[in-house]
Amino acid sequence: MQRWKITVEYGGGPFVGWQRQNNGPSVQAALEQAILGFAQEQVTLYGAGRTDSGVHALAQVAHFDLEKPTEADTVRDALNQHLRPAPIVVLDAQPVSQDFHARFSAVRRCYLYRIGERRAPPALERGRIWPLMRRLDCDAMHAAARVLVGRHDFTSFRAKECQADSAVKTLDVLEVRCAVDELHVTAEARSFLHHQVRNMVGTLVWVGQGRWTAADVETALAARDRAAAGPTAPAMGLYLTRVDYGKKS
Amino acid sequence: MQRWKITVEYGGGPFVGWQRQNNGPSVQAALEQAILGFAQEQVTLYGAGRTDSGVHALAQVAHFDLEKPTEADTVRDALNQHLRPAPIVVLDAQPVSQDFHARFSAVRRCYLYRIGERRAPPALERGRIWPLMRRLDCDAMHAAARVLVGRHDFTSFRAKECQADSAVKTLDVLEVRCAVDELHVTAEARSFLHHQVRNMVGTLVWVGQGRWTAADVETALAARDRAAAGPTAPAMGLYLTRVDYGKKS
Repeated sequence: MQRWKITVEYGGGPFVGWQRQNNGPSVQAALEQAILGFAQEQVTLYGAGRTDSGVHALAQVAHFDLEKPTEADTVRDALNQHLRPAPIVVLDAQPVSQDFHARFSAVRRCYLYRIGERRAPPALERGRIWPLMRRLDCDAMHAAARVLVGRHDFTSFRAKECQADSAVKTLDVLEVRCAVDELHVTAEARSFLHHQVRNMVGTLVWVGQGRWTAADVETALAARDRAAAGPTAPAMGLYLTRVDYGKKS
Repeated sequence: MQRWKITVEYGGGPFVGWQRQNNGPSVQAALEQAILGFAQEQVTLYGAGRTDSGVHALAQVAHFDLEKPTEADTVRDALNQHLRPAPIVVLDAQPVSQDFHARFSAVRRCYLYRIGERRAPPALERGRIWPLMRRLDCDAMHAAARVLVGRHDFTSFRAKECQADSAVKTLDVLEVRCAVDELHVTAEARSFLHHQVRNMVGTLVWVGQGRWTAADVETALAARDRAAAGPTAPAMGLYLTRVDYGKKS
């Protein structure tokens, strides 16, 4: 038995999300099906993060166990063969020890959120960016983001359906940068609450529109009440960009 | 009567190309239809370049004449409303004088060609890049590209169907640069022959693979024979990125 760690890129548009569900195609099910097709083994795939429907990944990480002895390049290439034409691609496959767990061994998750500022909607980047179609105050958003960095109770930025035991999380990075006709929000933490990034982005956009100040964000955070913060930004702008593991993996 | 210059972004995948044809949807026809929907005027749209089926544009330029008096922002926004859900977007609309012609007034066309080098195929950029899936010798390609820069008879890089009177063109820029897991070929000239950029890219890829040297490219150019040069790179990697006009526009 060999444990395999795979790094996966996908476009979230056609999927109900990462996790297998009864109401539509998931990234997890598509990958499990590809593994079955390649190795004739019915496995359970464990992902580092359960991305929502419409959320993309540049480098999601997952693991599974195979009885069949095989090579890393073969795993990658065969899975990509079996995945077509789904917009899911295995970038890398590595044999890892049995104590590696894609979800529990992860020490950091990194996300990017793309907001489109230009007046015209996207043609090439449709479904890959939140087309807000107006200029935002990038500096004010970046300053307000600093309020959220650190160890806090993020109840105000947590979806009702969130299953985490505690809403206390340490947010290591939350930055807002200007790109050409776009704003990029990057967020990094050991782990996030359900919808946390999208709820933080929706709130920061209120700041970018001049409706809120950094002080309002501080008040919302302190309220520990979802209704006190801004709206949930749409899934289409969100990318899981990286998952880090400790030295052991 | 007002002449309008529009700048257009599109994904070429669903189209038979820029030009109106009987065998499928074209970008030109979609835009003319949107103009009809907005202004109730049947116009003919003139584009700066006739991109082929599958070729994308970041900033194609076109012009048309309208009887209806209107504002630039209205033209842009109304056309975008009527274009949905086609992957075509008007980035900008400007009133111009009657002596402006999108095709004949253009003094420079700029193209980008994207070649994917990574072993895994693209998930997010599918249809937007040529997934060659192997490393190429970027420096050798860049050096060989210099052979083609300047005023030459480009018969060896011209499609059989090309309707241009002469195959003599001046290529101002042909550069190959490394990006993350990609090579970018940029080409700039007053005008190009049919398939010229794709034929030059296909030939440079032979150099990048070590099959050909810069001297072989020189021989191919001198042969003035399409069969003497490399293959046509696929449309999906090509982008019309900019069209420049003289001071008059």
